[in-house]
Amino acid sequence: MSLPQKVNIVEVGPRDGLQNEALPISVEAKVRLVDDLSAAGFGHIEAGSFVSARWVPQMAGSAQVLAQIQRREGVIYSALTPNLRGFDDALAAGAGEVAVFAAASEAFSQRNLNCSISESLERFAPVMAAARLHGLRVRGYVSCVLGCPYEGNVSPEQVVAVANELHAMGCYEISLGDTIGIGTPGAARALFNAVAAHIPRSKLAGHFHDTYGQALVNIYASLEEGIQVFDSSVAGLGGCPYAKGASGNVATEDVLYMLQGLGIETGVDLDQVIQAGQRICEVLGRSNGSRVAKARLSA
Amino acid sequence: MSLPQKVNIVEVGPRDGLQNEALPISVEAKVRLVDDLSAAGFGHIEAGSFVSARWVPQMAGSAQVLAQIQRREGVIYSALTPNLRGFDDALAAGAGEVAVFAAASEAFSQRNLNCSISESLERFAPVMAAARLHGLRVRGYVSCVLGCPYEGNVSPEQVVAVANELHAMGCYEISLGDTIGIGTPGAARALFNAVAAHIPRSKLAGHFHDTYGQALVNIYASLEEGIQVFDSSVAGLGGCPYAKGASGNVATEDVLYMLQGLGIETGVDLDQVIQAGQRICEVLGRSNGSRVAKARLSA
Repeated sequence: MSLPQKVNIVEVGPRDGLQNEALPISVEAKVRLVDDLSAAGFGHIEAGSFVSARWVPQMAGSAQVLAQIQRREGVIYSALTPNLRGFDDALAAGAGEVAVFAAASEAFSQRNLNCSISESLERFAPVMAAARLHGLRVRGYVSCVLGCPYEGNVSPEQVVAVANELHAMGCYEISLGDTIGIGTPGAARALFNAVAAHIPRSKLAGHFHDTYGQALVNIYASLEEGIQVFDSSVAGLGGCPYAKGASGNVATEDVLYMLQGLGIETGVDLDQVIQAGQRICEVLGRSNGSRVAKARLSA
Repeated sequence: MSLPQKVNIVEVGPRDGLQNEALPISVEAKVRLVDDLSAAGFGHIEAGSFVSARWVPQMAGSAQVLAQIQRREGVIYSALTPNLRGFDDALAAGAGEVAVFAAASEAFSQRNLNCSISESLERFAPVMAAARLHGLRVRGYVSCVLGCPYEGNVSPEQVVAVANELHAMGCYEISLGDTIGIGTPGAARALFNAVAAHIPRSKLAGHFHDTYGQALVNIYASLEEGIQVFDSSVAGLGGCPYAKGASGNVATEDVLYMLQGLGIETGVDLDQVIQAGQRICEVLGRSNGSRVAKARLSA
């Protein structure tokens, strides 16, 4: 079984991470974080989200963040845009790419997006059209791919259906998210195998949360399935809203450490990421969620 | 690639776990822990260590622990015995099996055991002879199999040499320990592959520490190499003496959760282990080191 030689990490700390931290932080701290991350070598940083600040106060100021960062050649600074209004704002702010977010579970879609799965997809149609018009690529997220906090089991077929729709609408990459971190490696492999029957593996990404400590092994299992793009969050930023005090996103440092050990190239400097993660943890007043960072910083 | 259908977990929390906690706890609390663990279904519990209480105060009272536990039919209650005196004490206390402990790194052996690797093996010879006389099986540990805090790299050949010696001396099972948790899955596979050229896979076990967050993925990689016995510690008891504040033993709950998800039998009840782990964490006044326990208890 040969693993990929190269992996792209999509650093989602500034968005999926900070969005799930208890308190909003300043635009300055966000800018510093994004700049630290681009300096560390990431090629794709999800820098913010264009949603109502009433619903997600942590994401307020995303336009200022995009305006104030030091843009590096070749780095994609993307933003989550749930609707056309968000897309317009992201475009005006200079987002280099946008992302839309659907769920594989009907109950999660209703509770999280206030609409059915098919309604959420309809809502993305104008975003896709506008993105095409302006030459921006759109990334599609599917959440709850290995289980739902409300429905429990989610079948690969449910995920295939939503992923196919996003792909057909024009998403260049589909990120499959284990939103509640409940999956184990056999299920992760089976899922990618099912989806890859419809969408090329090169267009799929894995987004694993570490709530049950399984994120890294799920990434390894996905590598064995030929997946080469993974989302992760520096210092493990972001908790799990469905289990207070539990972990959310897998820590980028821990993923990089494993990939380095496997001889897989990422183009990212682990030491710089550890520094960036520790800095933002100090701003947030939280402990570092990366075991690699903890071990390195305490050694 | 087919994974094993059954895995044996050697629960090392009462020994390797408690030994590396900051403070000793009472015999009563240890007895309760061991009894909780046997009730949860473990077939092998490392219940204590017969070493000088001057060097390892946390292990004082191991004889009382073995005397006071409620022994369950078929459960092995083992003890670490570094020398003949320790063996005699363990035998008198009713240990059902003993374990000896060598290092794959010369520097670690010198600093940790105060002797060379070959001197440590010589010291085990009378233990092996006495164990044979009394019909007790001896398990052999090799530490630092994927790296040493003093020497850095440790080659598979170094591990093969020590594992071979322990096997030739009569150890029925050799547990290969990533003492500082530095290994990644490719290295774990290569290691087991190298050792399995000399010793049957059915006689090998994996002992992974989670200091760099890699323990679970290393276990998965080892399963892919046909390894079917793993050591783990309830609630992730035990820190890492080489990186203060970092994690030590992989948490049993997280291993069980993964194995359950993979459809691999262990005979152990996860919910009971979570309860046992939370109880001992309260005694120790520490936070639970199992992500599965944290998620389940906070959900």
